[in-house]
Amino acid sequence: MNLAQDEARSRLAAARVARLATVDPRGDPHLVPITFAAVPDRIVTAVDHKPKRTTELARLRNLRARPRVCVLADHYEERWEALWWVRADGVARILAGVEDAPEREAALDLLAAKYAQYRLHRPEGPVIVVAVERWSGWAWAAPGPPARPPG
Amino acid sequence: MNLAQDEARSRLAAARVARLATVDPRGDPHLVPITFAAVPDRIVTAVDHKPKRTTELARLRNLRARPRVCVLADHYEERWEALWWVRADGVARILAGVEDAPEREAALDLLAAKYAQYRLHRPEGPVIVVAVERWSGWAWAAPGPPARPPG
Repeated sequence: MNLAQDEARSRLAAARVARLATVDPRGDPHLVPITFAAVPDRIVTAVDHKPKRTTELARLRNLRARPRVCVLADHYEERWEALWWVRADGVARILAGVEDAPEREAALDLLAAKYAQYRLHRPEGPVIVVAVERWSGWAWAAPGPPARPPG
Repeated sequence: MNLAQDEARSRLAAARVARLATVDPRGDPHLVPITFAAVPDRIVTAVDHKPKRTTELARLRNLRARPRVCVLADHYEERWEALWWVRADGVARILAGVEDAPEREAALDLLAAKYAQYRLHRPEGPVIVVAVERWSGWAWAAPGPPARPPG
């Protein structure tokens, strides 16, 4: 039922959407779906061209005060024996300044490699980088052999 | 782009899975996917027979100390113009005691009406009821006419 760390990491990396949880200044949880890319021990996501409700996003305001985040990807289908989820807990940094440009560009390259939309329209907003401290995951049923050998 | 409250509520109610964010005793966010049922201004979810990592679930421990939660459902597809998400912010209560039995049974009826799995196996664990204080939602494109007239 518990997924091994490598299995959790590779399932998250392959997911097309995840959810980013932050904590707001009052101490309340805040959730937003994200497109993202994952490499070992890091998850990156960008403020992109998707239409936004506000320009100063709550996720950025929250992260400046409380950098700890939780990221979740899950799989649902009506046959519940196929359910699984993966969670990454870590600490986020915002890459927005001139001094962050090289790291920000590297993160955008990861996003562009994963999503055709980012190859057409490279994100122009800040990049969030999560240093993952803990991977955890669950599946109803035991997973099959890993897609690649543990690294 | 912003969804009207009725539209947000009906999209969440129709979703088969959502994510529940809580805040742990250290003030860090915690995420778990949930099966759930939504009625106007309430979301219910139960500790059910899906295999669990632990019996004393983090979500229950967190809620006892900090009852404010955030619930998110989202829709992803590669055609990003079809993306949408809905968020509900509210306050959770745990129904576990004898005195909660009538309200708990009513919540389980809602879950059983939505999921065949719960008709076969009625949840035996505590029920979480979220009193929703705010519905918000976003869609890349303007939604079509609502499925039902605003109530």
